[in-house]
Amino acid sequence: MTVGIVGGGQLGRMLALAGYPLGLDFLFLDRSDDTPAARVAPSLVGEFTDRKLLRELARRSEVLTFDWENISLDSLRALGREARIAPPLAALAMSQDRLEEKRLFAKLGIPTTRHAAVDSPASLARALRSVGLPGVLKTRRLGYDGKGQAVVRSADDAARAFEAMQGAPLIYEEFVPFDFEVSILGARSRRGEVAVYPLNRNLHREGILRLTRAPWDAPSLQRRAAAHLRRVLAHYDYEGVLNIEFFVRGSRLIANETAPRVHNSGHWTIEGAATSQFENHLRAILGLPLGATTARGHAAMVNLIGSLPLRDAVLALPEAHWHDYGKAPRPGRKVGHVTLLAPTAAQRDKAAQLLLRAVDPASARTP
Amino acid sequence: MTVGIVGGGQLGRMLALAGYPLGLDFLFLDRSDDTPAARVAPSLVGEFTDRKLLRELARRSEVLTFDWENISLDSLRALGREARIAPPLAALAMSQDRLEEKRLFAKLGIPTTRHAAVDSPASLARALRSVGLPGVLKTRRLGYDGKGQAVVRSADDAARAFEAMQGAPLIYEEFVPFDFEVSILGARSRRGEVAVYPLNRNLHREGILRLTRAPWDAPSLQRRAAAHLRRVLAHYDYEGVLNIEFFVRGSRLIANETAPRVHNSGHWTIEGAATSQFENHLRAILGLPLGATTARGHAAMVNLIGSLPLRDAVLALPEAHWHDYGKAPRPGRKVGHVTLLAPTAAQRDKAAQLLLRAVDPASARTP
Repeated sequence: MTVGIVGGGQLGRMLALAGYPLGLDFLFLDRSDDTPAARVAPSLVGEFTDRKLLRELARRSEVLTFDWENISLDSLRALGREARIAPPLAALAMSQDRLEEKRLFAKLGIPTTRHAAVDSPASLARALRSVGLPGVLKTRRLGYDGKGQAVVRSADDAARAFEAMQGAPLIYEEFVPFDFEVSILGARSRRGEVAVYPLNRNLHREGILRLTRAPWDAPSLQRRAAAHLRRVLAHYDYEGVLNIEFFVRGSRLIANETAPRVHNSGHWTIEGAATSQFENHLRAILGLPLGATTARGHAAMVNLIGSLPLRDAVLALPEAHWHDYGKAPRPGRKVGHVTLLAPTAAQRDKAAQLLLRAVDPASARTP
Repeated sequence: MTVGIVGGGQLGRMLALAGYPLGLDFLFLDRSDDTPAARVAPSLVGEFTDRKLLRELARRSEVLTFDWENISLDSLRALGREARIAPPLAALAMSQDRLEEKRLFAKLGIPTTRHAAVDSPASLARALRSVGLPGVLKTRRLGYDGKGQAVVRSADDAARAFEAMQGAPLIYEEFVPFDFEVSILGARSRRGEVAVYPLNRNLHREGILRLTRAPWDAPSLQRRAAAHLRRVLAHYDYEGVLNIEFFVRGSRLIANETAPRVHNSGHWTIEGAATSQFENHLRAILGLPLGATTARGHAAMVNLIGSLPLRDAVLALPEAHWHDYGKAPRPGRKVGHVTLLAPTAAQRDKAAQLLLRAVDPASARTP
C-alpha cells in the first residue's frame, strides 16, 4: 500500500521512516530530486501544480497527504474524485490564510489575537485604529518561519511594511507580549478516534523554532489547549495530525496559528512518546487505530539550523538522538534536530540549555 | 557516508531505517531485487560470492557489514585492503562453524555443552560414547532457525541423522534439558567502548524464535552473561553488535551459539531501549560513541511467522509496535514482528501471552 506525499522535505522523510515498519510504501512529489525524502523513497520531480504528475501520484497511491501547507489548493482540488486526500483540503485552505484561521478560531470560541484584514492604505489606517499599536503586519498567505511578517510600532512602520509587502492581502494583529509559547498536536483518524499529545513549550528566534520541551507540565493549559484542538479536529471531520500554536500570557492561552500536518514541535515524539506524530499521522489517514501518545520521560528537541554541529560530540551526550535530514548547509535552513531524553523535567531543561548553548548560543541567551 | 550491507533481509532493512537519521546512506547486495531492504534503499543484485559486485559494494561504501552470517568468507577475504569490514571476519568465521564456536567458549572460560567433532561413522561412535545420549547432531556450518539439526536418542537415530546430513562436517552435542533460554546482546565500537543490553528471555519452537521478553530480571544471569559477552568482544577487538544465546538450567548458564550481527532477540530494542541494536551496530562500526542500552519499560517481541495477522487488531493493542518486513507469506518464514511495551513485567508477560495465543497458538501452549 503506497502513501503519496506532496512535498519531500524532512517531514516527508520522517513520515516514510515511520511508515516502513507499518508495511507502507511511499511516493513523493517535489521540485527537486535532491530532497531529504528522495534519499529514502522514490520521488516524482516537478512542480506542485503539475496536474499530470499529481494525477500520477494519486493513481499510484492509496491516499495523498502533504508535508507542508504552501502547496496549490487548486491543483489538489482539480484531482477531484481521482484522489483521496487527507488531511481535508478545507483545513489546508484555512491554514493557508491567516484571516480564515482567525475566523475559525472565533467561530469555535478559541481565544486569539485582535486583528483586522488589510488590503489598502485605508484599511490599514482602520486596522491601526481598531487593533492599536504595537502590532504585527503579516501576509495572509505563504508565511512560514517568520517570513512575511513585520512588527509595527508606529504608523510610519505600518506604511513601510505595507509598501514592502507589495499589495499582497494582509492581516494586522495586535502584538502580544507573551510569556512563552506552547503548541499542541493531535491526531484524528478516519474513524473519528482522537489522540492528543502532551503540551509542547516552544522557543522561537528570528521566527524559527529553536527548542521544544515536552511534556510541558501545565495541566490547566494542557486541558484548554486540548479542548481547542479537539474542536478544530471535529469541525473538519479531520484525518491526520494537526498542530495549534498558542501564546501564553499569565494564565491566558491565545491561539496563534495552525498547521494541518506533522509539525516541527512534535519531532520529540519519535523517541519521547509511545507513538510518534509521524506514525499517528499515517495511522490516522489510513483509518488504522491510533497509537498511544503518552510521553516516555522528558524530551527536549533542539533544531539544527544552517549547518550541523559535530555529530560525535552530540552522540556522546546521554540519551541524545541525532536526526540529519541529508540537506546541504545554508543559513537559516533546518538541516537536522537532536532530541534529548531525561528522567526528570529539571534534568531535561539543564541538558537542553547546555546543548542549545553549544549549537545556537543566541537562542540559549533568550529568556 | 554510505554503509554497504551484504544481505538485504529484514535485519538489513532495520539497519537502514535506524541509520537514515544518523545521516547515513545504504547500499545492499543480495540475490534478489525483491528483498525487505531493497524497498528502503538501493541494492546490487547478484550472488554473495560475486567478487565484482562485492568490489563495487566496497568501493561505494565507507564500511561493509552483513545482515546474516552464512555468507562467503573467502569472497569477503578476497577484498583484502579494498574494504573495511566490520564485525571482524575472524568472528564471522567462528560463528560459521559450531566447532570453532565451542572451542572459543572453552578458551575464554565460557561454560558450554559437552561436544565432539563428527566426520565419520567411527568418530560418531566415539562421540556417542564420550558425550552420551541423548544428544543433538548438527552440521558445523550453515545451520540457522533449527535447520541442519537432529535430536539423537539412540545409536540408530545417530546413524540415520549422520546419513541424512550427507557427509557434511558435523558436531555432536549433549542434549541439555534446559529450563529456559536467554540471550545477551552488546556492542563494541572501534574505540573499544562496550555497551551491553539487558538480558533477553527467549522462546523457540521448531527451531525458530517465537517470543523474546526483556529485560529479563535475573541479576546473576545478567552479570555472568554480560561478562561472557565482554570476553568474546574483547577477544576479537570486535566492532559492531554481537549476540550470545545461552541455555539456563537451574542457576547454570550454558553457552549455545553466537551471532556476529544484530539479532532477532534484540528487535525489542527499537522501542524498548534508549538506543536500538541497529543504531548501536552502526555507531560501533563507524567508531561513533555508543548509545545508552537502558530499557524503557518492559518489552515483549513476538515474531510473525508464515503470514501476518490482522494489522488493525494488533495496532489496537496498547503500546503495540508493528513491523512488517514487506515479504511474501511462506510457511516458517519470518515476515514481521510485534513489540509490546508495558509498565511492569507482569503486565508485559500477560499481554505477550495473549498476543502469542492469537498469532502462534502452539507457542503459547509451550511452557
